[in-house]
Amino acid sequence: MSRGQSNSLLSIMPLPAKMQRADGALKIDANFTLSFAGYKETRLDRSGQRFLRQLQRETGIVLAPSNKGTALATLALTTDHESKLVQELGEDESYTLDVSPTGAKLHAANPLGTLHGLQTFLQLVAIAPDGFAVPAMHIEDRPRFPWRGLMMDVSRHFLPLEVVKRNLDGMEAVKMNVFHWHLSENQGFRAESRKFPKLHEQGSDGLYYTQEEIRDVIEYARDRGIRVVPEFDMPGHSTAWFVGYPEFASGSGPYAIERKWGVFDPAMDPTDEKTYKFLNEFIGEMAKLFPEEFFHIGGDEVNGKEWDANPKIQAFMKSHKIKNNVELQAYFSGRVQDLVTKHKKTPIGWDEILVPGVPKTIVIQSWRGMDSLAAAAKMGYRGILSNGYYLDLGWSAARHYSVDPLGGPAASLTLDQKQLILGGESCIWSEYVNAENVDSRIWPRNAAIAERLWSPADITDVSSMYDRMNPESERLEWLGLTHRSFQRPMLQRIAGDDATPDELAALTELAQSLEHQKDYTREESAAAEPTSFTPLNRLVDAVYPESEISRRFSNTVDQYVASSCKDSALGRPLLGQFAEWASLENRLQALAQRSQLVKEASPAFSALSRIALDALDTASRGVPLSADQKKSKTDNLNAMEKQVHAAQLTLPMLPALQKLLDAASTGGPCSN
Amino acid sequence: MSRGQSNSLLSIMPLPAKMQRADGALKIDANFTLSFAGYKETRLDRSGQRFLRQLQRETGIVLAPSNKGTALATLALTTDHESKLVQELGEDESYTLDVSPTGAKLHAANPLGTLHGLQTFLQLVAIAPDGFAVPAMHIEDRPRFPWRGLMMDVSRHFLPLEVVKRNLDGMEAVKMNVFHWHLSENQGFRAESRKFPKLHEQGSDGLYYTQEEIRDVIEYARDRGIRVVPEFDMPGHSTAWFVGYPEFASGSGPYAIERKWGVFDPAMDPTDEKTYKFLNEFIGEMAKLFPEEFFHIGGDEVNGKEWDANPKIQAFMKSHKIKNNVELQAYFSGRVQDLVTKHKKTPIGWDEILVPGVPKTIVIQSWRGMDSLAAAAKMGYRGILSNGYYLDLGWSAARHYSVDPLGGPAASLTLDQKQLILGGESCIWSEYVNAENVDSRIWPRNAAIAERLWSPADITDVSSMYDRMNPESERLEWLGLTHRSFQRPMLQRIAGDDATPDELAALTELAQSLEHQKDYTREESAAAEPTSFTPLNRLVDAVYPESEISRRFSNTVDQYVASSCKDSALGRPLLGQFAEWASLENRLQALAQRSQLVKEASPAFSALSRIALDALDTASRGVPLSADQKKSKTDNLNAMEKQVHAAQLTLPMLPALQKLLDAASTGGPCSN
Repeated sequence: MSRGQSNSLLSIMPLPAKMQRADGALKIDANFTLSFAGYKETRLDRSGQRFLRQLQRETGIVLAPSNKGTALATLALTTDHESKLVQELGEDESYTLDVSPTGAKLHAANPLGTLHGLQTFLQLVAIAPDGFAVPAMHIEDRPRFPWRGLMMDVSRHFLPLEVVKRNLDGMEAVKMNVFHWHLSENQGFRAESRKFPKLHEQGSDGLYYTQEEIRDVIEYARDRGIRVVPEFDMPGHSTAWFVGYPEFASGSGPYAIERKWGVFDPAMDPTDEKTYKFLNEFIGEMAKLFPEEFFHIGGDEVNGKEWDANPKIQAFMKSHKIKNNVELQAYFSGRVQDLVTKHKKTPIGWDEILVPGVPKTIVIQSWRGMDSLAAAAKMGYRGILSNGYYLDLGWSAARHYSVDPLGGPAASLTLDQKQLILGGESCIWSEYVNAENVDSRIWPRNAAIAERLWSPADITDVSSMYDRMNPESERLEWLGLTHRSFQRPMLQRIAGDDATPDELAALTELAQSLEHQKDYTREESAAAEPTSFTPLNRLVDAVYPESEISRRFSNTVDQYVASSCKDSALGRPLLGQFAEWASLENRLQALAQRSQLVKEASPAFSALSRIALDALDTASRGVPLSADQKKSKTDNLNAMEKQVHAAQLTLPMLPALQKLLDAASTGGPCSN
Repeated sequence: MSRGQSNSLLSIMPLPAKMQRADGALKIDANFTLSFAGYKETRLDRSGQRFLRQLQRETGIVLAPSNKGTALATLALTTDHESKLVQELGEDESYTLDVSPTGAKLHAANPLGTLHGLQTFLQLVAIAPDGFAVPAMHIEDRPRFPWRGLMMDVSRHFLPLEVVKRNLDGMEAVKMNVFHWHLSENQGFRAESRKFPKLHEQGSDGLYYTQEEIRDVIEYARDRGIRVVPEFDMPGHSTAWFVGYPEFASGSGPYAIERKWGVFDPAMDPTDEKTYKFLNEFIGEMAKLFPEEFFHIGGDEVNGKEWDANPKIQAFMKSHKIKNNVELQAYFSGRVQDLVTKHKKTPIGWDEILVPGVPKTIVIQSWRGMDSLAAAAKMGYRGILSNGYYLDLGWSAARHYSVDPLGGPAASLTLDQKQLILGGESCIWSEYVNAENVDSRIWPRNAAIAERLWSPADITDVSSMYDRMNPESERLEWLGLTHRSFQRPMLQRIAGDDATPDELAALTELAQSLEHQKDYTREESAAAEPTSFTPLNRLVDAVYPESEISRRFSNTVDQYVASSCKDSALGRPLLGQFAEWASLENRLQALAQRSQLVKEASPAFSALSRIALDALDTASRGVPLSADQKKSKTDNLNAMEKQVHAAQLTLPMLPALQKLLDAASTGGPCSN
């Protein structure tokens, strides 16, 4: 098998740089052993133990305790030398893996490559006619980009330590290497500060990470080849800081933890020296806590209202010839970057920190668009891409997958400029996620982004991607991630204790057919303004961001519509799906009388049922639709989509339905 | 609602001693508060926090951090006085709970009752047309038996700490109050001994609980109103002890950890004083570690072969006029009981420790039958029942539910004698369970046993029990138990990465229709002798012990057969189920070619498909079956049952199918 070809037997993700299939397979049984040669360290020992545990989990095979690794081990690892004590950007992460029917060899320059290779091996283990096995092959692998990150916002909704850890496990599985920890926000300050304890004590409702826990996470991440970049967002997005320390704000206070979502007025006072004295000490404390080179200072979305309203700040601007708030923020940014640099860290920030005169050492995280990333590179700044990788927007895996850090305007950069684009980071902002459903908002789609950042640029086959992502999604649950399994208990809660099995089945079919509203439209259709206390216990919170049922349905529609003579073998599953959807309203209406949370979702199941009934009606006609009929049915589709917005849901099969309408208005099924 | 009546809105389990419904309901929303009055202690604070966390989990409602409990709290708790520092047998566990539309009051004599009442309240929370609520009612509750236990064998297969803890959570939910920890076996010694470290170091493959972990479990259990009774089984079931200390065995050694299942020869040397010197020190160490009054010394299943073969032991018996091995074990037992008593503990042991002259203080755990329990009571011994409560045998919840410690021969005891029957313990022996599937072998059936031991004797309605057990089963998963959710990943593993959604659905239907073989028949049909290394990754390991699909099917058959004119409304779901089962072979045969673990299960799906096809054939006849036809079809059913034994599975719908055959041979459906 050559690179990029899909092969249903290989669910490897991200795809390696180079992969060559050979004949035969290596059997995996209770006699499996692992050996280490070359450079050794306890991190490798731990990774070996983790590997064996995971191998046991994925196969159910019990490895005999007497199996000691030897030179004749089933999988022999060789690591040439150590990696950096504090993992650095751009270290060698390559490895080669050779699997033959008699054994496997993994070779890497340093432990980072070894870690990656072990993950590849685990993905290759599959059940076969004779039991578990790994197909014989030769792999040479290395990442395309050195910065492959996931940003987690643990501040709007606090995410407990175990959630962070299981997501680090998931990152390791798909070879991501940067955990960007968004630790402060208007809605919460989540890291313990010993120098300024009122930050976490008064800014977190008691929901924060102790320094011991933070060190534990950093260690945990390093064990998995992952750097931990902390972010303390300033001067905006900082209300929670001011609950305990109003003296550093530009307004008069008092401040309370923000409970709503959006952009808010509170901002640090960039004109008062005591702000910088405070930040110097605070950044110094955090710079010691986080060994990582990069230190994220946020910098996004300052609305400037507190600055406008503060006469002292206005006077300062006048006396310092600062013309506007953008310049004032640039002044603040520059001062903070100096502090970060003084504490031996490299600043990184969102788009907004890129202003004239900023030192070339900083890194820009582009959230506003790909243009700004390319523009920064042209000016000589390093950057990473997050625009297009916002997981909370609910895009499909395919859509994220199509976003390339070197695509769009970056495609026309010079080679040197392209080198400045370090990679990308997916982001999960946490307005509508909590410990219960956050995994589902990250996985499995994050695996597609991980592949985009690791695999060669020409790996772009969407169908192959889904064929590999779905099994990888199942595998990820073995690590403790709950992105699939979270749904059933939530649906049971929505349905209530006395729901019948058929009612629960219908609710599940409904949930798995729909998706939550995309982008930032959820607020628009909410009945009441959502806050951090709004329960996330509704159907919209329980659906998967990408409906596999609808995706398969849409694929079948594409094949059906493309078949020259509408293929009845393709038409049958479509009719079956319509019949299923059409049944939902009848099956759920009694339950909606008993459960408020089902009642709340009734616009969704009534819309889906009506759409399906109408589609069955269309299908039963022998003649093409007239233009009027088509328009009426199209209008109906659009009306139904609006209706489901009442429950903050969306009908992902709508484009496919429109295609069927288009086909039905140009000709019916053949007579054969 | 009066006691014992079923009510689909109330999924409370175990049912309280007395319960009276009133009008209206108490709304549960973000303003919910909890208050404590009367006696206070940190355990109650922790239970309150746990309660609130659980309430949030079960409803998805976020309780505002500013909500402080006051006298006007939604749920006001009053506890009169403390309970014992070390929880004791027979302490007051009663409570009263009053719920009105304006608030709820929970009153208990001591914290044990408060803990139980909080669990009852949690079970009453349900989704209603207006959101979550608790129906207004008055409950007066107390347990029928003071000893309501679960025994876990963590020795044949080691069960990690988190498994123990989540099962303690489950026990708390159903008001069980004794965790019996079976810590040593031929296959493993699972507790750290500092005095005799070779016990756990050489007897456990490194899989044991440290003393710190044990103390943690005891604390965790006490927080949940649960006593922890340790068991160190002796003089038999003790091979693992002798790996490090062969000098206390009756044979010549050397000994290795046993990997097979069954009764084995190794036994302690009851004739050597150094055995008792060792046990004195060991029991002394464990008596300090476990504060609990009772200390379980096992005593079961000594085959005596090592004693017979040892001339020194034979000589001792002769010189001490010990006639046989039963007397020799009695001698050993008496010596060990003296040691236990000396260390201020009360001995408890299995049936076999009851021999003439044993002090009346000991407690007998009856595993061999109800006769021995009654006989012991007649002699004045206290006892608990485990016969009939062995969860690993795979019985239905209904069958366990029908076993009453005061039923059978115990029913004719005097009142004083009945007082000696303290309750019962369910047991999970771990030949065929591990961390992955053990929860499913305990829950939800254990909830039925818990109800038998808590609720009044006249609570016996099996249908009501299932109507409440199934929702309770869903609730238990909120506590972290995985008895339902474990199945999907196991089936995915069996099916392999490239299984289609329909193949996975068919495999799930198959798994949920079948059960594993009952009692001790699994060994008989195994292809190779199972050991502790045998992977538990097959379909037999992934099925639920009790098939809900088959139970419902059987119920429908009962109604159908009982309907005077065979009711077609009842017949339709039966035909639908047959069609579903009939489809399994076609849907799974391609997968069986790809996956060894599906191939291995093919006797099961081919049998189920053929049975269903035959049933459809029977149903399609217009005339009653002849005697020959009925016999031929009955023979076929029995042959199919044998066929599925090849995969260690069983067809739980067989009795119902036989009823249909009987009905079909006496008359067909009516013509209307």
